[in-house]
Formats: sequence, structure tokens, C-alpha cells
Amino acid sequence: MKVNTKKTKPAQKHSKKAGLPPGTLVHVGDKKLETVRITYIDYDEQNIKEKQVSNIEECFPLKTTPTVTWINIDGLHEVEVIEKLGTQFELHPLILEDILHTSQRPKFEDYEKYFFIVLNMLSYNDENQTVEKEQVSLVLGENFVISFQERTGDVFDTVRDRIRNSKGRIRKMGADYLCYSLIDAVVDSYFTILEKTGEKIEFMEEKLVSDPTEKTLQQIHKLKSEMVSLRKSVWPLRELINGLQRSESSLISETTDIYLRDTYDHTIQVIDTVESFRDMVSGMLDIYLSSISNRMNSVMKVLTIIATIFIPLTFVAGIYGMNFEYMPELKWRWGYGIAWLAFMVIAAIMLIYFRRKKWL
Amino acid sequence: MKVNTKKTKPAQKHSKKAGLPPGTLVHVGDKKLETVRITYIDYDEQNIKEKQVSNIEECFPLKTTPTVTWINIDGLHEVEVIEKLGTQFELHPLILEDILHTSQRPKFEDYEKYFFIVLNMLSYNDENQTVEKEQVSLVLGENFVISFQERTGDVFDTVRDRIRNSKGRIRKMGADYLCYSLIDAVVDSYFTILEKTGEKIEFMEEKLVSDPTEKTLQQIHKLKSEMVSLRKSVWPLRELINGLQRSESSLISETTDIYLRDTYDHTIQVIDTVESFRDMVSGMLDIYLSSISNRMNSVMKVLTIIATIFIPLTFVAGIYGMNFEYMPELKWRWGYGIAWLAFMVIAAIMLIYFRRKKWL
Amino acid sequence: MKVNTKKTKPAQKHSKKAGLPPGTLVHVGDKKLETVRITYIDYDEQNIKEKQVSNIEECFPLKTTPTVTWINIDGLHEVEVIEKLGTQFELHPLILEDILHTSQRPKFEDYEKYFFIVLNMLSYNDENQTVEKEQVSLVLGENFVISFQERTGDVFDTVRDRIRNSKGRIRKMGADYLCYSLIDAVVDSYFTILEKTGEKIEFMEEKLVSDPTEKTLQQIHKLKSEMVSLRKSVWPLRELINGLQRSESSLISETTDIYLRDTYDHTIQVIDTVESFRDMVSGMLDIYLSSISNRMNSVMKVLTIIATIFIPLTFVAGIYGMNFEYMPELKWRWGYGIAWLAFMVIAAIMLIYFRRKKWL
Amino acid sequence: MKVNTKKTKPAQKHSKKAGLPPGTLVHVGDKKLETVRITYIDYDEQNIKEKQVSNIEECFPLKTTPTVTWINIDGLHEVEVIEKLGTQFELHPLILEDILHTSQRPKFEDYEKYFFIVLNMLSYNDENQTVEKEQVSLVLGENFVISFQERTGDVFDTVRDRIRNSKGRIRKMGADYLCYSLIDAVVDSYFTILEKTGEKIEFMEEKLVSDPTEKTLQQIHKLKSEMVSLRKSVWPLRELINGLQRSESSLISETTDIYLRDTYDHTIQVIDTVESFRDMVSGMLDIYLSSISNRMNSVMKVLTIIATIFIPLTFVAGIYGMNFEYMPELKWRWGYGIAWLAFMVIAAIMLIYFRRKKWL
Amino acid sequence: MKVNTKKTKPAQKHSKKAGLPPGTLVHVGDKKLETVRITYIDYDEQNIKEKQVSNIEECFPLKTTPTVTWINIDGLHEVEVIEKLGTQFELHPLILEDILHTSQRPKFEDYEKYFFIVLNMLSYNDENQTVEKEQVSLVLGENFVISFQERTGDVFDTVRDRIRNSKGRIRKMGADYLCYSLIDAVVDSYFTILEKTGEKIEFMEEKLVSDPTEKTLQQIHKLKSEMVSLRKSVWPLRELINGLQRSESSLISETTDIYLRDTYDHTIQVIDTVESFRDMVSGMLDIYLSSISNRMNSVMKVLTIIATIFIPLTFVAGIYGMNFEYMPELKWRWGYGIAWLAFMVIAAIMLIYFRRKKWL
Repeated sequence: MKVNTKKTKPAQKHSKKAGLPPGTLVHVGDKKLETVRITYIDYDEQNIKEKQVSNIEECFPLKTTPTVTWINIDGLHEVEVIEKLGTQFELHPLILEDILHTSQRPKFEDYEKYFFIVLNMLSYNDENQTVEKEQVSLVLGENFVISFQERTGDVFDTVRDRIRNSKGRIRKMGADYLCYSLIDAVVDSYFTILEKTGEKIEFMEEKLVSDPTEKTLQQIHKLKSEMVSLRKSVWPLRELINGLQRSESSLISETTDIYLRDTYDHTIQVIDTVESFRDMVSGMLDIYLSSISNRMNSVMKVLTIIATIFIPLTFVAGIYGMNFEYMPELKWRWGYGIAWLAFMVIAAIMLIYFRRKKWL
Repeated sequence: MKVNTKKTKPAQKHSKKAGLPPGTLVHVGDKKLETVRITYIDYDEQNIKEKQVSNIEECFPLKTTPTVTWINIDGLHEVEVIEKLGTQFELHPLILEDILHTSQRPKFEDYEKYFFIVLNMLSYNDENQTVEKEQVSLVLGENFVISFQERTGDVFDTVRDRIRNSKGRIRKMGADYLCYSLIDAVVDSYFTILEKTGEKIEFMEEKLVSDPTEKTLQQIHKLKSEMVSLRKSVWPLRELINGLQRSESSLISETTDIYLRDTYDHTIQVIDTVESFRDMVSGMLDIYLSSISNRMNSVMKVLTIIATIFIPLTFVAGIYGMNFEYMPELKWRWGYGIAWLAFMVIAAIMLIYFRRKKWL
Repeated sequence: MKVNTKKTKPAQKHSKKAGLPPGTLVHVGDKKLETVRITYIDYDEQNIKEKQVSNIEECFPLKTTPTVTWINIDGLHEVEVIEKLGTQFELHPLILEDILHTSQRPKFEDYEKYFFIVLNMLSYNDENQTVEKEQVSLVLGENFVISFQERTGDVFDTVRDRIRNSKGRIRKMGADYLCYSLIDAVVDSYFTILEKTGEKIEFMEEKLVSDPTEKTLQQIHKLKSEMVSLRKSVWPLRELINGLQRSESSLISETTDIYLRDTYDHTIQVIDTVESFRDMVSGMLDIYLSSISNRMNSVMKVLTIIATIFIPLTFVAGIYGMNFEYMPELKWRWGYGIAWLAFMVIAAIMLIYFRRKKWL
Repeated sequence: MKVNTKKTKPAQKHSKKAGLPPGTLVHVGDKKLETVRITYIDYDEQNIKEKQVSNIEECFPLKTTPTVTWINIDGLHEVEVIEKLGTQFELHPLILEDILHTSQRPKFEDYEKYFFIVLNMLSYNDENQTVEKEQVSLVLGENFVISFQERTGDVFDTVRDRIRNSKGRIRKMGADYLCYSLIDAVVDSYFTILEKTGEKIEFMEEKLVSDPTEKTLQQIHKLKSEMVSLRKSVWPLRELINGLQRSESSLISETTDIYLRDTYDHTIQVIDTVESFRDMVSGMLDIYLSSISNRMNSVMKVLTIIATIFIPLTFVAGIYGMNFEYMPELKWRWGYGIAWLAFMVIAAIMLIYFRRKKWL
Repeated sequence: MKVNTKKTKPAQKHSKKAGLPPGTLVHVGDKKLETVRITYIDYDEQNIKEKQVSNIEECFPLKTTPTVTWINIDGLHEVEVIEKLGTQFELHPLILEDILHTSQRPKFEDYEKYFFIVLNMLSYNDENQTVEKEQVSLVLGENFVISFQERTGDVFDTVRDRIRNSKGRIRKMGADYLCYSLIDAVVDSYFTILEKTGEKIEFMEEKLVSDPTEKTLQQIHKLKSEMVSLRKSVWPLRELINGLQRSESSLISETTDIYLRDTYDHTIQVIDTVESFRDMVSGMLDIYLSSISNRMNSVMKVLTIIATIFIPLTFVAGIYGMNFEYMPELKWRWGYGIAWLAFMVIAAIMLIYFRRKKWL
């Protein structure tokens, strides 16, 4: 699980654009799609119209209808599509810039006539074990929501199904509830990521106990920086939803406010879990370091046991290897046997000593 | 003492439900009871009626009586029971969802006509040394309190006794005082958990000094993560009670406010104690690490003492093991005796040196 | 200096009472006195009446007199005394409970008609080097102050003397000034504790440099937990005095407010000093740990010096202990002398090397 | 990359001036230019006039024109230029002092008739790998902006180009938008610095894994202090832009406010990145320290393996080097062969043991 | 540089006074002067009168004149001088107590008719390398400033010169500007202290790299506690100046407010620098600890290299020192030469191995 670094270097991305006037529309990010895919769902309690259009202009009439309209754009590299949409829906140039410049931190901005919301959609890529970040930008207007994504494939299918099947209260509610549903879907999807991460941490913890290697340290640090990256996506959410709740605007109805409170709760849960994970990873580092010390200790003990047993023995053997002419012991009939006895006694004493010290 | 992990994985639990429309009633949690158990106590200063009912509808007439009604539901897996109750008492779908989705963090929500409160009831399982968490949800209305628990068995028996025996002022007061009493009972029960945890920490501290092993480290870390888990149940309580106190609603009378202040005080005491425990556990880690270092030190000293005494001796023995033809000492009558003397002098010098260094 | 742990286990104490209705009067704490001792001082600018009474009822008439009345109760185990007083002075049951339940954190509570203040009185027990905590509860009413202590013996003698001798402005001022004087006396007494603690830290620091042992670490940790305990008594004081100052109540006159500001300043000084002490103790831990490393280093150096000098020498001696038939050196007239020369040269080279490396 | 220390010693700089009355104009900083270079751009939607003047008085008539005027001063050592400008534009002496005293932290000050803004312009000196700081002071008046720099060469060329070429909306907007553009250009340039720093950190991380030396530690610490220096330039920016946004003054139009919000967002991104970098550098320290431990471990292992294999062998050889008269083995025909066998068996046992322990 | 501990033990000082009624005037501090020295400067835009008086009463008529009066008292041990002044200028007894009790933390107190300000004046004693603290108390009234110092010699000479020479705007401004000038002079003098401290840290850093000894650690810790002491003088300044600025009182004119903002800025710069110094000192500790580890590492390497080369060699020599009767090699003509060859080959292999491992 490695957060794709190509996408998470805001410094690098941003520096590409440094110096251009604000509001200049340049897509800063990887091109992840061949063609831009534009779809819309237009519904009220009775009717629903869903369509994929090839031309953005087809969506424009929906702006003035009293029905709730959700326009979704997958792919951001065709700047003129965004531009036309911006002109038609009177979006501020800075919003369009932020949509295209895909390394925004999650934020909420109130432009009076509409709200602009940026979220990070996270998805777990099982293949190369990476968490992939994708910027989702939402514009909530009087009776429309426009969503911008870098790629096709998202966590909004459940929302689409609910609209199609009139499940839940979504068809009876306005654009604000749709917008809430999208945010909620993104937050809900974080729990899946957290579950995967949790499993990974558990796996690491077991490995740490059973077989810690030098590579383990690097993995712990990778895990740590993944936590930092997750935090960055999650923490600003709190402020974002808070901002939505506190906004005095009529764009958010009181009923939806209660639902946002629920999402806020989920966000806090996500943050709590990320923080616990951080704590766990920090704890793993402590365990790793003390396990190194422990291993050093056990290496030292082996050396000490062997050395302290044999060094004195070798000395005794050395004594009787001396060539003095007058060494009476050498002449003794049982000298050699006594020497062996001495060896054994010395070794035994040492072993008893070590056992006492609990080294054996 | 291990916090039951099955129950404390919000990520996993939550991901089961991801994508369902908000307010969908699905019980997310372990089924801990065979049948749902519904009881109510209905009382005023003079009368009291207590009953276990098999059908939730039996409780509905109590809603409109001027007496204080406490409906308690043990077991959450029969979703339709919760649903009927919700409809009758006009509870918001999100409340019902939170009741069923048993991994909420403690919180207080003001729905104008009623308050919704989530608490964690902790109980110490002596058998497998675990602290078990159980979600208790309270709904406080005009003259009723509804409590939802995952299992039978709770810390509310003292409250029930007080109602039955007219002890304290509980029978003279309204539903708000009943609600306060339930919260207070939960907070009071934390002190028991803290006491058990305190004993465990003390036991660990003694073990750390007398016989620290590699397993000790893992136990310290387990203790640490238990503290983290306790904190999660306790910290939000502060905000919860604060919220209750500050709410402008007429649901809480001024008299009860003073009692809530007392509970708030207890909560702060619990938090303080948890924080001290955290400090203690951190300190234990330091002691453990430095005790490893100390042991390494003592291993090194033994090695050094043995090696530095015998290595020079072995060298001297080696000298007189050389086969040079002209080594006058070898011919000396007392050569061998002098060699022994040399051995002893060298050893003595070393021992004195070590004693000076305070290694012996 | 060990904070008496019997008294500082709020969890244990509290759990004794868990489940009783709030306001139930049970003395939770050690019985520290045989009999309850009740004294009062009643004074105005001209007159003063001081008396020890055996019956609490004797104090009741003082309530309505315009003079300032200070009733002091030493010993809390006779619950009915507290109860009668409570009834007469219309104290809230929760106050009485807090007075008896002697492990409150310092706090200030505004009950409109009177203020309730809890303080920790610290005293240094020179005999067993412990800081002893005692809860002092103060009730400040219109023209009376009631103080509750667990034992006789307190830091209020200077206040009594000032009242008796009309020293300072105390006789000219109201009950609020008396209350301030008592709080001030408690805060002032902390400086004595800090001085003792400071001396102890200095002593430890010297010992750490001169002779650090494994026991030192445990002492440092004990000191650390003493700091934590001190902090717990001191930090809430800040909020307490702040609360008194900010209270809009007429119980505190503006003149006294200025004096409270002075006490607030002292509290900040105490907190600052406690924080510096904590920093110092943390620093001591660092020094201890690095002194272990340093000692290990020096052990290693001795081993290395001895081993690296004698191991090569022993090898050389070993060469000429070999029994090859054709070893020309063995026949040389000066072979043995040359061997000795070799020994010395090798040893000298090693010694020079070590001196270069600054190991000697 | 070393932050030029000559320029970043505020203490030293400041102490030069200590004691002079406030508002005394002395240039405190290095003289970085031979001559002061004064240029202005005067524009409205239709016209533009750009000129380098040798005499500051030439700019004065521009003050009263309705066009937007941007006066830029490169070089601060000619105090009288600043002084004349100050008199003409009625700048407060403290502003002039701050402009000349080039070690201000970024700040925003509202002088009612004009705003005073101090920024740090950072540039990466590829040659000696240093980040160079230069103070940029901006004064925003009714329809003029005056910018003061220590040197020629800045990050404002893109702004100049936009004015010249009427790119973006700059020519249609007032002085506040110009001021915003300058601030934005400075913030944008930080991303380039961050990119360079990011590359450096990545390079260090790779080196840390492949070949950590004692020098690496010093480089990590240098990197750490660079982060501290960057932080100092970046953190105050947040408050600065916030101040600008919240100011009630008519100097900033509502339209420009939205743009400032965008710059604020960028600032937060810069801060976030700097904080991640700090985390990374801290993590590098951990890795470094544990890599030292690991290497010590591997050194110890080699010693232990060699010593524990050969010490027993040497002992066995020593036994048969003894000169006892009655050592039957010495006479055996295969004694020597058996000795060799013993050597091999012992060595093999040891090797198997080490393999089991995973030391080999 | 050691902060004079005699003066910085607030606990000890304070405990001397514990129990006295508040407002009792006792000089708590070292007597640093033989006689109290009283001087005044009385000035307006045209006139100036400067005088040293022997009797405090001489200053009293100045109170009512419309000119700005600055009374300076050096030496605090003659309590009656302070007392008389207090009575004449109607100063609150607590102020007088704080003036005499010289271990106050910097603070600002608003007594409506006058402001009371306490500052720490720091001076660097080059002789014994200590930073000396001296309490300066200021009372700012309608048109007078009274300053109290413990000793003669201060940082106010530049202010005096400016008054005498009519430099800057000081003669045109009121007492508030004088007061600001005094505060500013104190803050300015901190930069000198910071410069000295900075030099010391740089010196330590170099020493740490070139020659770290056990004493270095103690010096680092002394430096650390000096930083703590500096912080204590500097941090409260922020709040102090803030308080002055925000006070609604007419004692501070709006013009002076702008100057105070400048001083506030300087204070922030001082705090920033102290914090960087703290960071640097912390970093030094890390470097010290890892340098100990590194040295241990290099000690171990030497031991390992010597031991692993010679232990096998000694074993080989031991083999041919055995006395078996049938050892064919011993009879070989070139046996001894081959043995030498074996020695060299083994040593060479080891050396190559170590070079590969980069230990040589």
C-alpha cells in the first residue's frame, strides 16, 4: 500500500503553473482518460432522466428546470468543456482553476450563489497495494449538483442506484440532499480503506513479533507516511462539513443539516481511527527498536557464555603447556586426569553462575 | 484485560453498511441475545408500575401519561421492534440507525423534541481479563426515557432500586433526573474499571522491577492500547455532558443541571486518572528500555572482567610454552613458582582495578 | 517524598460509593481524627469572639449576625454534624457529598447564595519524606465562611493570628476577604513544598553525576510521578481563582478582586515552577540514559584495549610454541630476546594507537 | 542547501541598532547592490507607462493620478531615498524602519490610509545549494503599491508581463489586485523551493538506506534546521493573508477578497508540505539511529561467531599442547586425526547453532 | 553563562514571606546596593530638569505638574522610601509588595488610575558567563513614570540621552511614550543577550562535532535550562504588551499604540529566536547521543577486527603446538613456512572481508 507519489506532489504540480495569472485554466495532473465522459441525471419525485452526452451543451437547459440535476464529468484534460460549463453556470474562474488543478486539499467555499466543495476520493488498489487519491470537486447550486472527477469509476454508484430505484428519501429531497449523499458516499468509502489499512497494521504487528528484519523498519516508516497522507485527506473534512453546517445560506435546508451532522460524526470516527492507527504504528517503532536491543543482548550473552567458560580453561591448558623444567604436576601419574577434572569444575561453576543470572 | 476487538473495529463494521441510504435500519454488531427483552418502569411520586412486556406496542400508551416512563430494550437484532418504537415516538431515522449501529462514539444530539445520547458502558470481564464495551443509547423526551442496550445485565440496577424504594429524590423528579441518574450510573461504573486497571498497572510495575522479560514489553504495549481505548470512551463524555448542560432546552430543568455539574466533575476525575495511567505506562516503557541497557551493561562487565583477567595470564603462559632453545627462566629452579606468582599478581591487579571502577 | 497513595486513589474511593443516590452522605476517606473538632471565630472591626464548641448547634445563631463568622470543622467522619450544618446553612446535598468525599480536584462552584471551593492543602512530612494531601472545603456565604478539613493542623494559623491581632486589613473587610486569605494561605504554603522538592531535585542531580545506580532511575520516576501529583493539585487552582474573579456575584467585592489577582499571580508562579521541575526531571532521565551508554562505552574500551594488546601477543607466543622440527628462530641465540622485543613493540604500537584515538 | 546564516541572524542585526530611538532610519542588512534602482509602472485599462528613474522625485506626481501605480525600489542602502518617499507618501517612521531593517518576520499592518506588508522572498541558489531569503516590503495605498527589495531580480516578472500584455484581469482591477498578485507570486515561488527541498529529502532518504555515514546525521540536522527556517517564513503568512481578508478597510475590494482566499489556500498547502517534510526528516533520524544499532549488531555477530567457534577449538588444541607425561591420547596412532575430527565437529555444531539463530 | 540561581528561586524567596498579610512590605531579594539612589527627569518639549535627590519627598511636587516626570529608584532595601512614594502616589499596597518582592514574572496590571508593569532586565556578565536577571517595575500614571530597579546600571541610558538631546519624538510625547521607550529599551537589550547565547550555541555545536566528552552533555543541559529561564522572561512579555495595547484606558494614546505594536513585533522575534535556540539545543542532544553510539561502534569494530584476525591464527598455532606423536606436518621440511603462509592467507581473507564490509 503506497500512496501514489506521482499524484501527491503538490509542490511539483504547482510549480508547473507558477507565474500564470490566477484563473488561468490549465489541467495540472495526469491525464487518466482518453475522452471526457459527461453524464447527467435529472429527477424529481416522479420522473427521472439519465443520459450520457457527448456535448456539454446538452446539459445547459437543465440548469433552469425545477428538477434536481446532477451533472457528472469524468476526465479533466479537455479544458474547454470545463470552461463552457463554467460560463454557463457562472462559476468563478478560481473554482474552475481548482477543479483542474488536482491537488487541492479538501475544502468548502461559499460563493453565495453556489457552494464549491473539494474532496479526496480514496480507493484501494489491491494489485500494487496502493491507496489511490482522486480529487472530486462538487458544485452545489440552487437545484443542481455538478461533480468533477479525474477518472471514471467512483463510489457514487450506490447514490445513483438510490436515485434510480427511489430508495431512501433521495428523490423527495433537493439538490442539497444529493450533495450530502455524495459527500457521505465518499466518507463511507474511507471505512473500507481503514479496514484494509487495519489489516495491514495487524499483519505488520505479527511479523514484528515473529521475525523483525531491517526491512521491517522501512515498512513501518512507509506505513507511517501513509498515515500522514490519510490524515491530510481526512482532517480538513471536519472543517469542511462544519462549514457546510454553519453556512447561513438557503442552499442547505434544515433537514439536510441533520444528515450532515451524521456525516460529521462519521468523519470524527474516521479521524479517531486514523489517530489510533498512528499510535499503533508509533508503538511498533518502539517494539522494533527494543527488539534490536534485545537481540544484541542475546548475541552478547552467547559470546559472554562461551568466552567466560573457555578463556579460563585455555589458560589452565596453557599453564601445563609451559616448558619449565621443574613442574612437578607434569610428572604426576594422575596429573592429566586432574587437569580434566579442573576443566570440568571450572566449566560447571561458570554454568551454575549463568543459570543463577538467568542467562541460560 | 483486552478490549474485545471484535466489537471495537468501527472501520470493519461500518464498511458492511457502506452505500446504504442513511437511515436504513440494519443491526451492525454481534447478536448477543436470543430474544429482545423489553421492560418498562412507570412512576410518579406516589405510584410505580414495573413490567416486562413481550410486545413493544404495550408501552405505547405510556407515552402520553404525565408519569415518568422508562422503557428499556435489551437486544437490538430485532430491527422491527426499534422501528415501531421509532415511529410511535417520532424518532428521526438517523437516531434509529445510530442505535442499531453499535460503534458510535459517545455523543449528545439535540433534536428539539427529545435528546439523543450515546454512551459506552464498560464492564470488566474477570474471566478473560477483558474490558467489554457495550453501547447504551438513551432518548430523553418530555416525560419518558428510552434506553437501548445490546445485552441484558447493566449498571442501572441501583437506579431501579432507588425508584422502587423511593430512595433519594428520584421519585419526586422528572424524566431529566432519571436520564441524569442513568448517565451518572455509567460514569460511576468507570471508577470500578479504573480501579481494576490501576491494580493491573501496579502489578506490571512490580514485575518490571523484579523480572522484566521480552514479553513484558508486549504487555506494556497492550496496556497502552487499552488506555487509548478507554480514553476514546471517556473523552467525548466531557463534551456530551457539557452539551447537555448548555442546551437551552426545557427538557433539562435547572435543578438537574446542578446534578449534571457533579457528573461532569466525575468525568473530569475519570479523564485525569486515565491520563495519569497513560503517563505511568509511558514511564514503564522508559524503565523497561533502560533495564535492557542495564542488563547489557552487566553482561558486558562479566565478559570484560573474565577476559581482561585471563587474556594476559594466557599470554604469560604462552610465553613459557615457547620452544626457544635459550630461555634461561625455564631452567630456573623456581621458574614455575615465579610464573604462578606472576599469574596471581596480574590477576590481583586486575581485580583491584575493577573494584576501583566499582564493577565488582 | 512519596505522595501517600492510600489517599490519592480516587478510583478506589469512588468505587466504594458507586450506585448510591447522589447527595447520599457517606464519609469516603481515612478517618484521621478521634473526635470532630469545631471552632469558630466571629469578628468585626471592634470585637472578636473565638471558641471551640462541642456541639455544632452553638454556631447556628452566628449565621444571622452582621459580623464575619468563620466556622472551622476538623474531622469529617461524623456525618450528622455535616448534615445539621448543611440543613441550617441551606447547603446543597451535592456540596455536602463533595465535602465528605475527600478526593475532589480543586474546584469552584457558584451556588448563587454561596460559593463552594475545594482546595488541596499540601504538607511535607519530613519523617517519611512524603507530601501529604488534605482536602480543604470552603463555603463562602453572605457574611460567613465555613471550612472543612480532614485533620487538625493547618496552614491557617497566620490568618487566625492576623484576625486576633488586627494585623493587616482583615478585620476591616468582609467574609470574602477572609475567604481570600484562606486560599492565599494555602497557595503560599505550596511555595514551601516547592522549596523542599527543589532541594530534592538538586540532591538527585548531584547524585546522578557522582554515582548513578539502577536505583537512581526508579527515584527519578518517583520524582516524576510526584510532579504529576503536584500538578494535579496546582493546575485546577488557576481556573478556580479565575472563576472567583469573573463571577458576577456580589459575594466578592471589587477590593477583594484585586487581592485575588495577586493570588492568581502566585498560582501562575507555582505552576511555572512545577513545570520547570518537570523539565528538570525529564532532563535527568536523559542524563541517566546517556550515562549508562557512557559506562558501557568505557567497559567496552577496557575490554578492547586489553584484548587487542594481548591477543596478538598470545598469537606470537603461540607461533614459537609450535613443534615444527625446522623452525630456525628457535635455535637462534637471541631468539627469545627478539621475541620479547616483538612483544614490546606490538604492545607499544597498540598503546600509541589507543592514545591517538583518545581512549587512554 | 544552507540558509545563508549571515542574513538570518536577527539577534545580531538587531543588536546593532539597540538604543536608537524608534523610527531612526538605518539600513540594517548586507548591502547587496551598488546603486539603488527605482522603476515604476503606471497603468489603467487602456494605458501603461513603464520607466526606470534615477531620481525618486520623478515618481511623486503619480501618487495623485487615478491610475494604478507600482513603484519598485531595488536596494535599500540609500536611506534618503526611502526617507523622501516616506515623507511624500506620508508613511509612518516605523514602516520605514521596518523596510530598512531587513529581518522582519512576515506581517501585515493596517495603518488605515495604507497597508504595510512584509514578505520573505525565497530563491534557490543552485550553485552553493542555499535557499536565500530576501525581504520584500509592500505598501498598498488607495491607488498605488510600493515594493521594496534588497536586490534586483525577483519573482514579479510574470506580474509585470501580465500588466504589459494585459493578460488576465490585472489591467481592469485596482491596486489591491496588483498587491494580491505580488503576494501570490511570492507564495507561488515557494512551491519551487519546496520541490527542490523535496528532491533533496528523497536523495537523502536513498543515501540513508544505501550508505549511512556519520556525516549523514549532520546533513539530516542541517535539513531539519532548514525546515525550521522555511517554517518561519511560511507560518506567519497564514495570519498575514487572514488579516488582509478580515480587514474592514476599503483598500481591499470584495472581488480581490476571493482571490486572497485562493492564496490563503496555497499558503495552507505550503505549510502542509513543510510539515510533511519535517515529519519525513524526523523519520530519517529514527532510521539513522536504528541503522547504527543494526550495524553494531552485525559487528557484534561477526565477533561472536568467530570467537565462539575458535575459542573452544583453541582450548582443545591447548589441551594437547600440555606437557603431562602421562597423556595416553598423545601416543595414539590416530590421536592427531581424531583431534582434527573434534575440531570439525565442534565448528559444525557452532555453525548449525548460528544458522538456527538466523545469524548466518 | 549561568543564570544566577540565588536570584531565580522564587519558591525559596516566597517561602520566607509565607504567612504575612498581603501588602506587607518586606524586601525579598538580595541587597545589591549600599544606598538607595533616587533620580528624576522632568521635561516637556521646551524644558528639562534632571536631578539626583537624597530624599524621596523632593519628588512629590512633580506629581501635579503638567510636565512628564520620570522618577527612577535604584535599590529596594529601604522599604520606607517605597512606602512614602506609595502613599504619595496612592499606589495599591499589593503593587508595593510586588516591587519589593523581586521574583515576579513579567506582567501588566491595570489599576485604572495607573498601570503597573513588571519586566525582567537581563544583562550578560562576561566575567562569569552568566545572564543576570534584574526586576524592573514601572508605574505609569497620568503624566509620570516611576521605575524601580534593584541595582544601578541599566539599559535606559539611551532613553535618557534621547530626552536630554531631544532626539526622536520623545520630548514631544507624553508619559505613555516614555513608558513605551523604557519597555522597548528592555526588549532591545534582549537581542544582545540572544546574540551572546547564539555564539555560545555555535561554539558548542563545533565542539560537539570535534571533541564530544561526557562534560559536553552537562553543558548542553545547562544551556537547555538557560533557554528555559530565558523563555520565562520573554513569553509573558507578549501578553504584557498585548494587554497594554488592548487596554481601553486613556493612559495610552493611540499614537503610542502603534509604537507598542512595533515592540510587540520585536517580542515575537525574540520569542521566535529563543524557540529556534531550544530546537538547536535539542538537536545537539540527539547528535551527542548518536555520537556516543558511533564511538561505541568504532570501539567494537577495532575489537572485532583484531579478535577475528588473531583468534583463528592463534588456533592454528595452537594445533602445531600439540604434542601428538604422530603429526606428519611437524616433520615436513617446509611445514613452518607453510604455517606462516596459512597465517598470512587467513589474515588476508579477514582483511578483505572487513574492507568489503567497509569497516576499514
